[in-house]
Amino acid sequence: MSAINSSTQDRSRLIPFSSRLKEGRALALDVWSIFSAVNLPADCINLGQGYMNFAPPKWVTTAAEQALQSVPPNHYSHPRGRIRLREAIKAFYGPQLQRDLDVESEILVTSGANEGQYSVFTAFLEQGDEVIMFEPFFDQYLPSVTFNGGKPVYVPLHPPKDSVTKPTSNDWTIDIDEVRAAVTPRTKMIIVNTPHNPIGKVFTRKELESIAAIAEEFNLLVMSDEVYDCLVFDGKEHVRIATLPGMWDRTVTVGSAGKAFAATGWRVGWLIGPQSIIQPTLAATTRIVFCTNSPLQEAAAAGLEQAKERKFFETQREEYTERRKVLSDAFDELGLKYTQPEGSYFILLDISQVKFPEDYPFPQSVLGRGRDFRACWFIAMEIGVSSIPVSEFYCEEHANIGEAYARFAFCKDLDTLREAAKRLHKLKDYLQ
Amino acid sequence: MSAINSSTQDRSRLIPFSSRLKEGRALALDVWSIFSAVNLPADCINLGQGYMNFAPPKWVTTAAEQALQSVPPNHYSHPRGRIRLREAIKAFYGPQLQRDLDVESEILVTSGANEGQYSVFTAFLEQGDEVIMFEPFFDQYLPSVTFNGGKPVYVPLHPPKDSVTKPTSNDWTIDIDEVRAAVTPRTKMIIVNTPHNPIGKVFTRKELESIAAIAEEFNLLVMSDEVYDCLVFDGKEHVRIATLPGMWDRTVTVGSAGKAFAATGWRVGWLIGPQSIIQPTLAATTRIVFCTNSPLQEAAAAGLEQAKERKFFETQREEYTERRKVLSDAFDELGLKYTQPEGSYFILLDISQVKFPEDYPFPQSVLGRGRDFRACWFIAMEIGVSSIPVSEFYCEEHANIGEAYARFAFCKDLDTLREAAKRLHKLKDYLQ
Repeated sequence: MSAINSSTQDRSRLIPFSSRLKEGRALALDVWSIFSAVNLPADCINLGQGYMNFAPPKWVTTAAEQALQSVPPNHYSHPRGRIRLREAIKAFYGPQLQRDLDVESEILVTSGANEGQYSVFTAFLEQGDEVIMFEPFFDQYLPSVTFNGGKPVYVPLHPPKDSVTKPTSNDWTIDIDEVRAAVTPRTKMIIVNTPHNPIGKVFTRKELESIAAIAEEFNLLVMSDEVYDCLVFDGKEHVRIATLPGMWDRTVTVGSAGKAFAATGWRVGWLIGPQSIIQPTLAATTRIVFCTNSPLQEAAAAGLEQAKERKFFETQREEYTERRKVLSDAFDELGLKYTQPEGSYFILLDISQVKFPEDYPFPQSVLGRGRDFRACWFIAMEIGVSSIPVSEFYCEEHANIGEAYARFAFCKDLDTLREAAKRLHKLKDYLQ
Repeated sequence: MSAINSSTQDRSRLIPFSSRLKEGRALALDVWSIFSAVNLPADCINLGQGYMNFAPPKWVTTAAEQALQSVPPNHYSHPRGRIRLREAIKAFYGPQLQRDLDVESEILVTSGANEGQYSVFTAFLEQGDEVIMFEPFFDQYLPSVTFNGGKPVYVPLHPPKDSVTKPTSNDWTIDIDEVRAAVTPRTKMIIVNTPHNPIGKVFTRKELESIAAIAEEFNLLVMSDEVYDCLVFDGKEHVRIATLPGMWDRTVTVGSAGKAFAATGWRVGWLIGPQSIIQPTLAATTRIVFCTNSPLQEAAAAGLEQAKERKFFETQREEYTERRKVLSDAFDELGLKYTQPEGSYFILLDISQVKFPEDYPFPQSVLGRGRDFRACWFIAMEIGVSSIPVSEFYCEEHANIGEAYARFAFCKDLDTLREAAKRLHKLKDYLQ
């Protein structure tokens, strides 16, 4: 049918796409595509992308199957989310947020945490409004802000000092004066991400208090992305900024069924906050997606309902702690510095010492990017383990800070991680 | 916990929501909420909202259950959609569109047709760009356009002439000179919806050719919302505007698994079009939702793969024809005029003759709206069958045209429709 397919359109008459796509890296070849499986050797172990290579718990998927077998959970949900899930969120999060949550006005189910956050930007950003985010940042924030007319403003998380021999994510620090200096009359919002992707940092109460004070002083909305809240290790306390004095009224807390129940492809997330934030965000999400898929909302509800009795999150945390150890032990053996994460499922490896031939046959997509793009490519091709270059999580001006790191995800089963560890051992031939 | 819940926030410091919510009825109480089950008598038969009261076919839900039992379909899909579903869309739609579709650049899976259309607006609209839509229009178009900076421009579908005693949806007509007159230098896009919600009109080849000629002349993008394409009755031909000469390059065709497989709550839809439209829209949807839920994409793929062999759509069309007959027979018995739909699952009933006491205890939400809001409320309360007032599908200036009609959905099982018909018989006591 090639004759039919040949375009008769005058190229000069192509309908132009919106100028909003020219901002926020929206059309750039993203790091996920560059380091996707199709571009790497078939047997490469994928520790790049943050999805699990194991299934959700059987008792959760069974709830999805049950939902599929009855009528209503195959049809539209209320745009706020299915009442069963909202009740489950209320029961699970209410005590943690120290509030008797109102399921009608303070909880909103969204099509993944990603769409929920996008809807908050749609609901609140005015053209030119500024949004403060800490660098490195989850890469979706940037275009989500610019698509909605906002302007990202970056404040660095400072890497561990060279003198720290065994850094943890707590050694990445904020300078609150830099936050304050970033505030302008156009600042509308600040994004907090704890546990942090890609660093794994669990913000301390003191850090959050200092951020809260600035939010109060300048009347800022706080979007607290806590999608890794169930993955906090070593007895570290996960503080929710919404629970600090005065902060409920200006904070929207973001959660995710995908991260909680090893189901990143279910696209079920939620927002919790005061009616003054949830109501406008409902108006936005109702138009953007209308509602979230129904069967998997039922399953997420079952997950939250039964998690406590089954000690699911306690067990899952132990499993992830073991997974983290396999990877960190491998880096220890190599004598490489890495950031021990207190939360999330990522380890940042310091790749400054990894040497590779500059004339290695790198593809065009990694040339002209940071040194970390070349290092990650080299490691994937020669060692057979893929990771993600961390400069992608920085704005262009500060990309050089990220160039020292590769992000390895440990949301994989133990066998896979052990095989990865074995392969990574070979990295010792490429250390300078 | 009421003490904890009491807000300490100074109301004057409430963080203002975006001005985009002040347009496009985004914060208005929508018709779906007013006529939702919670506001109506418990035993009211819901023919208002367009979702089925029956489940998707067993062989389709079984595919979803199988997907849930393996690992990859529980995790992120590619933002373009799962390859199995894209291949199934190619095989199913390719012949109808007379093209050898490229699964990598010409097909995009979205989180429902709604989100797909929203993403097209995000990808293509510049502040102030005009979008032509026919009235009545699917109510989501309006805020989806204004949220993305666009300006809706309305062209009426003219109701059947009074002299037509048995009107069909084909008696609702467009005046192509009115379409031409609506074009300005800022016109970017025109929305075609065939089969049409709420009229059921299946646009004729001649009508589509006249629209296509204008799109060509003024270099407009055509969004062809064909989510009811599998529900065309009476042997009527469903013409796809993308197949008209020269139109492929400027048309994006919208489809829906929810409508096709009685699964409105699955939130799986798709866009088909040239790379020049799909690629920018992919950039938009990737940031808005990242990807669509994976297990139900697998099920939708199974649906499209097996539909032909199972003669599923032929059988479903026959079932819907029978459903339509139950309702239209009831209106015939009452001697009321209605629009016999050639497609979709809606019947517009002319309610001009339905009389109700003006001092009936109507709720505030329907007072101050069109007469049809009061008529639909009265019918729901007194007859026990809910419908949707059609003025909601018009802009404010033209709402009076819609006031003559109520929309009844026949996407319900036969028993329910028969009981509704029996109840509607009592409407004869309220005719003038």
